[in-house]
Amino acid sequence: MNTATAPDRDLVTRTDGDGVATLTLNAPKSINALSEAMMGALSRTLDEIAEDTSVRAVILRGSGEHFCAGHNLREMTERRSDPDGGHAYFRDLFATCSAMMLRVVRLPQPVIAEVSGIATAAGCQLVASCDLAVASEDARFATSGVNIGLFCSTPMVALSRNVPRKQAMEMLLLGEFLPAARVAEMGLVNRVVPRDALETASAEMAGAIAAKSPVAIRAGKRAFYEQAEMSLEEAYAHTGRVMADNMMARDTEAGIGAFTRKEPMPEWSGT
Amino acid sequence: MNTATAPDRDLVTRTDGDGVATLTLNAPKSINALSEAMMGALSRTLDEIAEDTSVRAVILRGSGEHFCAGHNLREMTERRSDPDGGHAYFRDLFATCSAMMLRVVRLPQPVIAEVSGIATAAGCQLVASCDLAVASEDARFATSGVNIGLFCSTPMVALSRNVPRKQAMEMLLLGEFLPAARVAEMGLVNRVVPRDALETASAEMAGAIAAKSPVAIRAGKRAFYEQAEMSLEEAYAHTGRVMADNMMARDTEAGIGAFTRKEPMPEWSGT
Amino acid sequence: MNTATAPDRDLVTRTDGDGVATLTLNAPKSINALSEAMMGALSRTLDEIAEDTSVRAVILRGSGEHFCAGHNLREMTERRSDPDGGHAYFRDLFATCSAMMLRVVRLPQPVIAEVSGIATAAGCQLVASCDLAVASEDARFATSGVNIGLFCSTPMVALSRNVPRKQAMEMLLLGEFLPAARVAEMGLVNRVVPRDALETASAEMAGAIAAKSPVAIRAGKRAFYEQAEMSLEEAYAHTGRVMADNMMARDTEAGIGAFTRKEPMPEWSGT
Repeated sequence: MNTATAPDRDLVTRTDGDGVATLTLNAPKSINALSEAMMGALSRTLDEIAEDTSVRAVILRGSGEHFCAGHNLREMTERRSDPDGGHAYFRDLFATCSAMMLRVVRLPQPVIAEVSGIATAAGCQLVASCDLAVASEDARFATSGVNIGLFCSTPMVALSRNVPRKQAMEMLLLGEFLPAARVAEMGLVNRVVPRDALETASAEMAGAIAAKSPVAIRAGKRAFYEQAEMSLEEAYAHTGRVMADNMMARDTEAGIGAFTRKEPMPEWSGT
Repeated sequence: MNTATAPDRDLVTRTDGDGVATLTLNAPKSINALSEAMMGALSRTLDEIAEDTSVRAVILRGSGEHFCAGHNLREMTERRSDPDGGHAYFRDLFATCSAMMLRVVRLPQPVIAEVSGIATAAGCQLVASCDLAVASEDARFATSGVNIGLFCSTPMVALSRNVPRKQAMEMLLLGEFLPAARVAEMGLVNRVVPRDALETASAEMAGAIAAKSPVAIRAGKRAFYEQAEMSLEEAYAHTGRVMADNMMARDTEAGIGAFTRKEPMPEWSGT
Repeated sequence: MNTATAPDRDLVTRTDGDGVATLTLNAPKSINALSEAMMGALSRTLDEIAEDTSVRAVILRGSGEHFCAGHNLREMTERRSDPDGGHAYFRDLFATCSAMMLRVVRLPQPVIAEVSGIATAAGCQLVASCDLAVASEDARFATSGVNIGLFCSTPMVALSRNVPRKQAMEMLLLGEFLPAARVAEMGLVNRVVPRDALETASAEMAGAIAAKSPVAIRAGKRAFYEQAEMSLEEAYAHTGRVMADNMMARDTEAGIGAFTRKEPMPEWSGT
């Protein structure tokens, strides 16, 4: 395993092994808050991974006990002394955060949120923005901004595309913590496991994805989010072209050939 | 508590207390049918509440045993003697009903459906149109128009935006009554409680919302339904602006300040 | 019962009785694979049923142990020797398949998938494309193309309109078989019953639909999929017109009349 752990001062550490990049939000004292620096570090790391064909799946976790508590409110409060009370800064900040969330969605490789402890506000949004999520039994989720006067309006974009409308509204209006088992029923999380099985669970999921043809995974993930915003007829026209192109990949020819001959799958070439 | 109960002849009674307006559909003999007069009364009451900043949450219930049985079929049948067989009248009637449902969605304050007994057809739609819903264990839900030859086509607009597609289709095509526990699994209802705990449950939910900053709640509810009809990228652009504006509210500055100083939340000014 | 079973060589057999057409994919040796011939046969049969007002509901099942294993990979592989490696053929093939799936959605009569054994890839898509689905306890569902290098991009169009986003992504990225009970929780299947109760369950559901007014069912099914792609306001404008038109049907006048007079429902005329 090639471990490229970043220095302590770095806010997002990356460890690569067996085609899986594990990213750790590394600011446990602030419950891994999404400060400007943290969003910058995560965005840069995602941009690097997007270009790195050795990475076939990504795990995203928090260091310490918790996943992520959302925005850094102290940092934001300091900008209230700007001439405009911070308004322009806040607009930029939320735009930066949204761009980071969209990087997760648009990353060619699937991203698995591995959640222990709390995932609140933009931290809960980060879970919702990932393609898959596993959580420990003691993890808790909230869009709790409403409790302090700041409705989780950008988090709800991701949340409401994961869970049914009334359940999203309940989280947003009441701001209560919900246990992992409940949000799994809602659809926000795929699997809930004991705390000491959490890393194994996400590693198994990532490993399973890393073992598939990366050509198929990349084409499929991208098309998933594209077709989600199309009419049924447009979605079929688009994905039909995607599948025909997918058929032309060397990996796909080799994979289907092996399957029809009842042979094991080939080593994927990535082309 | 300021109780402003309307006279008996009024079809929608309103009782206000502690920032919560409780609206009661008051025609138990017709199972609180949505007659023209009832839709007019509920629409007017919602319009009043929309302008009333003392109201921070709304509870909607039926008088007597049941929530609401939908349209008043006797009233509709009488118009079959119109020169056009009632066609123009029916178009107006469904447009009036849809406008009423949209008033619930667009009301600045969150609306909680409190459901006991039956909620059928446009009565089930009314539950689906509310932001949140609590139900007693013996409540039953149906889009039963199909049983008498009138498919619940407008109710399905709200229903299909609350529950998964095949589950909506099952309710619409089969017209069967489903118990509260089942529709809660589907996502149509947030909480199911014993009959004698129903009013407490909705009051707790409304009270929790009334205790939040009304600036945040108004901005958030409105943005929720707006972003639901946007692409992911548009939704982030829109809600990012909403959050930056939310940050500039006095309540939000006070709330975030108190939170970062680990103090109790302030009294909200509503600005 | 009028049994019009097609000859053995026919790939889709049709049996009609009591307003219900039961279609059986009849190629058990290939697990009822959606070969060109099979898609042609199913498309033609659906086109016939669309014009046949004696049919009020459709059941779709597989012959033998399983429902359907998706595309015929051997047939597809043979076209790799085309001058373009099969690319044009594959585009046509997926377009043909999508058109067949859209025929199910656009069929005036509701279609119930009756699933035993496996439903994989385009077979799973066929379940998702039906209006309703019943499954035996031992049925298993997968979008397993990812395992052989061909992401289930067209199946995901139907799947992601049935189940929550992360659950769809889990099926698509991991390609694992999920039991009927699990996909029922997700929303892909309406009812799960023991294997020996499967045909009774689908017959009961089809019979219940066949007993409704076909005018209402046709108008409602069509409007359901139309409004699903509209904004809330457009959807209400459209379905309001649909309901007003539905009110003008003779069946609807008779049905509502019987209901308000507390009489049994009439024989439906279909007009």
